[in-house]
Amino acid sequence: MFESAELDVDYTKEQYTAELAGLRLQLFKMQQDLKSSKIPMIIIVDGVPGAGRGEIVNLLNEWMDSRNIINRTFWTETSEETERPEFWRYWMALPGKGEIGVFFSGWYEKPVMKALAGKSKDSGFEQQMNEIVRLERMLTADGMLIVKLWLHLSGDSHKKVMKKRKKTGVNKEHKSFENKSIGKAAYESIRKAYAKAIRLTDTKEAHWYLINSQDNRYRNISVIKTLISNMQNALDKRGNSAAAPVNPVTSPQSMLILDNVDLTLELTKKEYSAELPKYQAELHALTLEAFSRGISTVILFEGWDAAGKGGAIRRITSAIDARMRRTIQVAAPTDEEKSHHYLWRFWRYIPRAGYVTIFDRSWYGRVLVERVEGFACADEWSRAYEEINEFERQLENSGVLLIKFWVHISQEEQLKRFKDREASELKRYKITDEDWRNRDKSPLYNEAINDMFIRTSTDIAPWTIIAGNSKYYSRIEVIKTVCKALKERLKKK
Amino acid sequence: MFESAELDVDYTKEQYTAELAGLRLQLFKMQQDLKSSKIPMIIIVDGVPGAGRGEIVNLLNEWMDSRNIINRTFWTETSEETERPEFWRYWMALPGKGEIGVFFSGWYEKPVMKALAGKSKDSGFEQQMNEIVRLERMLTADGMLIVKLWLHLSGDSHKKVMKKRKKTGVNKEHKSFENKSIGKAAYESIRKAYAKAIRLTDTKEAHWYLINSQDNRYRNISVIKTLISNMQNALDKRGNSAAAPVNPVTSPQSMLILDNVDLTLELTKKEYSAELPKYQAELHALTLEAFSRGISTVILFEGWDAAGKGGAIRRITSAIDARMRRTIQVAAPTDEEKSHHYLWRFWRYIPRAGYVTIFDRSWYGRVLVERVEGFACADEWSRAYEEINEFERQLENSGVLLIKFWVHISQEEQLKRFKDREASELKRYKITDEDWRNRDKSPLYNEAINDMFIRTSTDIAPWTIIAGNSKYYSRIEVIKTVCKALKERLKKK
Repeated sequence: MFESAELDVDYTKEQYTAELAGLRLQLFKMQQDLKSSKIPMIIIVDGVPGAGRGEIVNLLNEWMDSRNIINRTFWTETSEETERPEFWRYWMALPGKGEIGVFFSGWYEKPVMKALAGKSKDSGFEQQMNEIVRLERMLTADGMLIVKLWLHLSGDSHKKVMKKRKKTGVNKEHKSFENKSIGKAAYESIRKAYAKAIRLTDTKEAHWYLINSQDNRYRNISVIKTLISNMQNALDKRGNSAAAPVNPVTSPQSMLILDNVDLTLELTKKEYSAELPKYQAELHALTLEAFSRGISTVILFEGWDAAGKGGAIRRITSAIDARMRRTIQVAAPTDEEKSHHYLWRFWRYIPRAGYVTIFDRSWYGRVLVERVEGFACADEWSRAYEEINEFERQLENSGVLLIKFWVHISQEEQLKRFKDREASELKRYKITDEDWRNRDKSPLYNEAINDMFIRTSTDIAPWTIIAGNSKYYSRIEVIKTVCKALKERLKKK
Repeated sequence: MFESAELDVDYTKEQYTAELAGLRLQLFKMQQDLKSSKIPMIIIVDGVPGAGRGEIVNLLNEWMDSRNIINRTFWTETSEETERPEFWRYWMALPGKGEIGVFFSGWYEKPVMKALAGKSKDSGFEQQMNEIVRLERMLTADGMLIVKLWLHLSGDSHKKVMKKRKKTGVNKEHKSFENKSIGKAAYESIRKAYAKAIRLTDTKEAHWYLINSQDNRYRNISVIKTLISNMQNALDKRGNSAAAPVNPVTSPQSMLILDNVDLTLELTKKEYSAELPKYQAELHALTLEAFSRGISTVILFEGWDAAGKGGAIRRITSAIDARMRRTIQVAAPTDEEKSHHYLWRFWRYIPRAGYVTIFDRSWYGRVLVERVEGFACADEWSRAYEEINEFERQLENSGVLLIKFWVHISQEEQLKRFKDREASELKRYKITDEDWRNRDKSPLYNEAINDMFIRTSTDIAPWTIIAGNSKYYSRIEVIKTVCKALKERLKKK
């Protein structure tokens, strides 16, 4: 989920100065347009302590006309508030038509703080998130625009910021605020709690935007761009509810998670030959134990054409007893499958207790090929992220172990493999015109893949990205990851 | 909630024969239209044991072309099912495009049975209902039509049916089915559990239809009519998501809950003068105790113009210390109120702990005057029932005592009062042209009021209908009801 918000940023002051002026003007104009169109807006500013929540709120007030901005924190409840239903304070703070409410953490602060303090059970937390979803749905149905910003820092960046603050002495000022909010909690627990909160509340009606805040300038531009595109979208949507969904990352630079995968990783044939039997034996034993304990496993593979999914799958299947595993090759849906909800064809193959299903391509086709090729309309694929997260939540809740792989290769490596395939009579059947066409569309695919990682790499079902240029390396990585996940799950119960 | 489904039915065999043939033909044709339009449909047939669930399912198969109907019960889970996520069995049973799934109790059976057996906590039950709402929303977003039928019997009718079954000996056959379902539970607990389930899952996407099943013929016709209008609606909606919402009661006869209020009830002046001070003293004491214990109260009044709401309210307020109560007269919204979600103006006045707010007219304006006068569009008022139930759930959860009154008078009595008002100089200000106009629209209001009772008279916030032709009677009834509700609440904690 946070992958793209943790990438290293390389953005200069010059670039910032060049971009900022124009964007500020645009933002200011958008605010006027929202006002004259009487669209109310809420910006929830949340994030890791030290990522600059306060700074962003102050900047928002500087960049826009602060006269119709309402800034609100929801720290300690007043007695007026504790004596009324919980959501009363939020209702009282709602901006009117054409106004903008800038809310520090908003309605997320209280339930997350409670969870951090160990005061709410998992099921209680889920229910609170549900109530928030219902509130946000009620407000957006009434025409409100809600943009939720999560200003993110990786663990290392967070440490650096905190050190710097201590040195420069601004720490004291921040402390006085942070005592009132989640600022006291440890980085890891905040990250964990919000990963869950974001997963449960990242809806089509009110998306979360994860802002890489390692670099202040980069962060500022990302925030402005995100706001502008959402405001534009709300203006377009008047009288036409099918406006295009807003991309989860609106950054100064197109930064792809996949671009940061180290593709030089490799194994020699000798290393491979030594490691493979070791891991295969381990996997064999682990799946047998899982079988006897009734723990089922779903492993899915997505990746570029010719990335080596099939090869990796064969190394897994040959390690598992054939009676307890099944591989599902996902291609065009059958007539019967087409006649149902797109998730139906995957529900069909959810394994019984103890069994293993391996999906060669999966339900993610909805937000990859179906999105890029237009087989699903914008409305369909943009609500699919939520549907997929709900589906995976149900798998997780019922005890299914879910492992998701993206096998990555470079464009050059793909070209080489395509040509090899054409040259080999044995492999020629594997390459079709479609593969070449898909290759031409790689920028569109890259965007779809990035969105997919951001929206569906969740706390309960994270993606594992495998560097695939070296087949030996990737096959071992895959089987190693499966073994590790199984071992952890078997330890649990 | 069940009020309209418990009214006495007067429907002859001749009427049935005259209506049935045409409706069957229509239903059959609709089924063909759905099929050719590739719309999948689920009919959930649920209800009080003895109300004829099995009979209806069999009739549906007779009335329609049973070749594309899939009948399913969800009784004991097979081992295939228990070994997979809970919803797997429902996914596997989903009808394809153009098919109709007729599900006995559907996904409601298991959670309700669990609740009846005392095996789920309130919060767990709410969460299960939430999961169902998400499932139904996912399916309807994909184009499925879901119609949920609740075949209802009042306690007395239920007893009669059971007695008759015993006599005729069909009991044994039913027993064998009912052992597998909720049939064994007591009437009252089933009614209570489903009142909650229906409240939490009666959404705009998948409404519940409460079918009066006292008379088999009447029930059959209601079911057919409900199905036809929903199917018609689904066909109209293709490519145009704003089709008209379907009325909650589609019955052979227009039966209004209000028509069954006994308006002859009255009190003499002497009785009134004796009772009023007694109840006012009681109310005074009760509100003081509630104040000291921090229990707040919201009382709302709706009713026909000149029904005597104001008079009843004054008898209450004069009994409560002025420092702890407030009356809110709800008229046209202010500019500031118009600028917010329609519920905002009511949230404003939610009392602090211990205080009392009395609303003279309320948030129900959304589904009454705003619906009838077209101030709210169909989309807005039809989603308001859900929003109101959610709002009232939040009040209830936070411990607010909510009492809802509809003060009813006959058309004749209203006319008399209007004329009296015009004749009296002191009261003339109370009557305007608008009152006369509203009177002309009484059929539209009657329909809206009936829908309102059905959709918002819930287990946690039931409506109390007051017979208002006798002012003495109605004032005493109102204050008595408030005293009783307060007493019960004070007993609780």
